[in-house]
Amino acid sequence: MKKALEGFKVLDLTHAYNGPFCTTILADNGAEVIKIESPKGDQCRAWGPIDAKSGESGFYAFLNRNKKGVTLNLKSEEGRNIFLNMVKDADVVVENYRPGVMKKLGIEYDVLKKYNSKIILASGSGFGQNGPIHDRPCYDIVAQSMGGMVNLTGFANEPPVKVGPSIADNVTGIYLCVGVLMALLNREKTGEGQMVDVAMLDTIFSILENAIVINTLTGQIPHRQGNIDPSIAPFDIYKAKDGYVALGVGNDKLWSKFCEVIEKPELVKNEKFLTNDSRCKNYNPELKNIIAEWVKDKTKKELDDMFEKAGIPCGPVLDMKEAINHPQIQAREMMVHINHPTIGEMYFQGVPIKFSRTPGSVDKPAPLLGQHNEEILGKMGISKSQLTDMKLRGII
Amino acid sequence: MKKALEGFKVLDLTHAYNGPFCTTILADNGAEVIKIESPKGDQCRAWGPIDAKSGESGFYAFLNRNKKGVTLNLKSEEGRNIFLNMVKDADVVVENYRPGVMKKLGIEYDVLKKYNSKIILASGSGFGQNGPIHDRPCYDIVAQSMGGMVNLTGFANEPPVKVGPSIADNVTGIYLCVGVLMALLNREKTGEGQMVDVAMLDTIFSILENAIVINTLTGQIPHRQGNIDPSIAPFDIYKAKDGYVALGVGNDKLWSKFCEVIEKPELVKNEKFLTNDSRCKNYNPELKNIIAEWVKDKTKKELDDMFEKAGIPCGPVLDMKEAINHPQIQAREMMVHINHPTIGEMYFQGVPIKFSRTPGSVDKPAPLLGQHNEEILGKMGISKSQLTDMKLRGII
Repeated sequence: MKKALEGFKVLDLTHAYNGPFCTTILADNGAEVIKIESPKGDQCRAWGPIDAKSGESGFYAFLNRNKKGVTLNLKSEEGRNIFLNMVKDADVVVENYRPGVMKKLGIEYDVLKKYNSKIILASGSGFGQNGPIHDRPCYDIVAQSMGGMVNLTGFANEPPVKVGPSIADNVTGIYLCVGVLMALLNREKTGEGQMVDVAMLDTIFSILENAIVINTLTGQIPHRQGNIDPSIAPFDIYKAKDGYVALGVGNDKLWSKFCEVIEKPELVKNEKFLTNDSRCKNYNPELKNIIAEWVKDKTKKELDDMFEKAGIPCGPVLDMKEAINHPQIQAREMMVHINHPTIGEMYFQGVPIKFSRTPGSVDKPAPLLGQHNEEILGKMGISKSQLTDMKLRGII
Repeated sequence: MKKALEGFKVLDLTHAYNGPFCTTILADNGAEVIKIESPKGDQCRAWGPIDAKSGESGFYAFLNRNKKGVTLNLKSEEGRNIFLNMVKDADVVVENYRPGVMKKLGIEYDVLKKYNSKIILASGSGFGQNGPIHDRPCYDIVAQSMGGMVNLTGFANEPPVKVGPSIADNVTGIYLCVGVLMALLNREKTGEGQMVDVAMLDTIFSILENAIVINTLTGQIPHRQGNIDPSIAPFDIYKAKDGYVALGVGNDKLWSKFCEVIEKPELVKNEKFLTNDSRCKNYNPELKNIIAEWVKDKTKKELDDMFEKAGIPCGPVLDMKEAINHPQIQAREMMVHINHPTIGEMYFQGVPIKFSRTPGSVDKPAPLLGQHNEEILGKMGISKSQLTDMKLRGII
C-alpha cells in the first residue's frame, strides 16, 4: 500500500521546530523530504534529550524521522548552485529562516521560479513576511505571549503561564503543511506554483476560540480562569488521592447521574444547583468544595471507572509515562519503534492522521549529518572524489 | 484571483468545535462547504458570546463563516436519502459525531461509497475510531488531560492547568484538514477516495515536543515548569509595571547585550553567569530575582522597545484587546470585518495561511439556520411547496 504523498519531492531548508514539524508530517505520509543542513548541522542536533551513549539528540531524531539528510553551504556559490539544480525537479521548498535570509542567500521565490516555474515555496516564521515587526527574532514563548495565549492560560489569581510544549511552533508547522497541500492541490488544477507564508503570531491568534469574539461583540476582555469553563458547571480538574482528574458535566441529565455517582442524591433537588446556570453561579466555592472533598480520597483509576460507567466525560491528568502506556494511545499506535544507527532502538510519537487506504508510518530513522550526500548529490553527477574535496572546502 | 480550493465540494456534518474548525479552513480557501445541521441546529448556536440584540451566537458566527447552511433530519429516511443524493457530486464528507453514530444513521463509509466511489470521509473524534475507549464521550479538557498536555502546563509547585482555549479541538481541526487535503491530492493521482480518522487524544499527544523522547531516552518523567526553559537562561515571563513580558536570552552574545540593556555590565564577568549552562544552574532564585527586580518598575512598552533595539527576543503578554489592536496583527490582516444578517457588522480572526497567488478570505457570514435550504435543495429538484411541507414534518 502506497502512502498519500508518494511521488512528491520536498526540499527542506528548515531548522529548529516549526518548519521541521511541517516536513515531518509530509515525510510520514510518503513525500521524499530532503533535509538540507549547513555543514554545521541544524541547531536542534544539540537539543535535549541527548542520548548518553551516542551523544545524539533525541529531539532531532524524533523530529526528523523519515527524512533524508544532505549538507550544503548555501552561503557559497557552489552550494547555492547545487541547491538551485535540486529545485528543478522538486515540488516544494520549505524554509523557516528569519524573513529576509532567503533573499540574502539569493534563493528567494523569484530566483527559484527561474529554475522551476511550478515550484511552491512555503515559509514559516515568527511574525510573517510583512508587517512592522516581521523581521524581529521570535521564540515560541514570545508568539504565545503576544498572540494572546499566555494571558488566557493559568489561574485567575496567579500569574499567566505559557502552554508547556512549544505549541506556537507545532501549530505553525501543521498550518504550514495545510498551506503546502492546498498549493499542491491548486497546482494540480492550474499548473502554477506560489508562495505560502505562515507566522507563529498569526496561528496562535487564530486558535483563541471565542476569546476574540467575546471582546469584539461584548466589549469584555476575557481573562484566564484556570480549569473551569464559565458556561458549564461542574467542569474542572480535581485533586485525587494519587493525582488529578478532569471532569465535565455538560447538562442536567448528566448532573443527575453525577449526583448518583457521588452518592449525594439530595444535590439534584437543591435549588442552588438545579440548572446549569445556577450551578455555574454557585460553583465557586460551594459546589467546587463539595466535589473536591468527595474526590480527594479516591484514586484516579477509581474515579475514571465510576464516571466512565455513568457516561460522564472524565479523564485522569496523565504524566508522560502514564500517557505512553495508556491502552488507547497504544491501540492507536501513537508510539512507534525505530532503529537509529547510533542511538539504537528508539521509541517516540507516531502518526496522528489515520488513513484507511494510504496509512502514514515511521519507516526510517532521522539522518546523520550528511548521511545521504553521496546518494542525493551522486545522482546529480557529483563524484565521490568531488564530494571529498567539497567536504574539505566546507561546501558540504 | 481564485482561491486554492475552488471547485471542491464539502458536505459538512460537523458540530461544536473540532470538525467546524476544519471546514472553516477549507471554506476560507474556496471550497464550497455545505453545513448540514439537524432542524434544531448545531449545539454551538447556543454558545457564548451571544449577541444581545439578535440573540445570535458570536461563537457560531465566527466559526462558520464562508459556509452555506442546510437543515436535514438524518434520522428520517427522507433526510438520509437527500443527504446520500448530495454525496453523489461531493468530494468530501466531514463529520465529528461520536464513533458509531454514522453507522447508526446508515451513512457510514461503505454506504457513501455506493453513491460516490471517490468520496473521502473525514472523521474527527475524542479518542478515534478504534481502541478500547474509542466511544467514550470526550471534552477538550479530557483530551488535554489524558494526552499529557495538562501535566506539562502550569507552575512546578502549583496544580496543573489546562491550556485556556480548547486547543485539542483546534489542533484536531487543523490536522483533519491536513488529512482531507492529502486524501484529495492522492485521489488526483489514483482516482480513489478513503477514510481519514483524527482524534483529539492523539493530536495532543503528538504535540508534546520532546517530553515523550525525554522519557523514553532517559527514563525521566518531565513535569511542568511554568515559564522557564530548563536549557536556556534567562528565559521567562516577568512582571512589569503594567503587566507581564516574555524574554529569552539564547546565547552568550545576547547575554552580554542583555547585561548592557539592564545596565549591569558587571554580570557578564560574574562566574555564576558566564555560560548558558551556569546561568541555567544559577537562575532560580539568584538571576531571576536580579531581573525581576529590574523589570518591575518599567512598562511593557519600555521593555519591548529596549530589548527590540538590542535584538533580544522579547514580547509583552497581550490581552485580547491589545492583541487585536497590535500593529502586526493588523498588518497581517488577522482581524476581518463581515456583515452578518442579524448581528450586523462583526469583527473576528481572519485567515492565518497567506498565499501569494490564491489568498483565502472571509467573504460570507455564517448561515442562519437553514438559510440555503432553498438554494441547495432547490437545485436537487425539491420545490418550494415540498420544502414547506418538509419543514412542517421536521425533515428540514
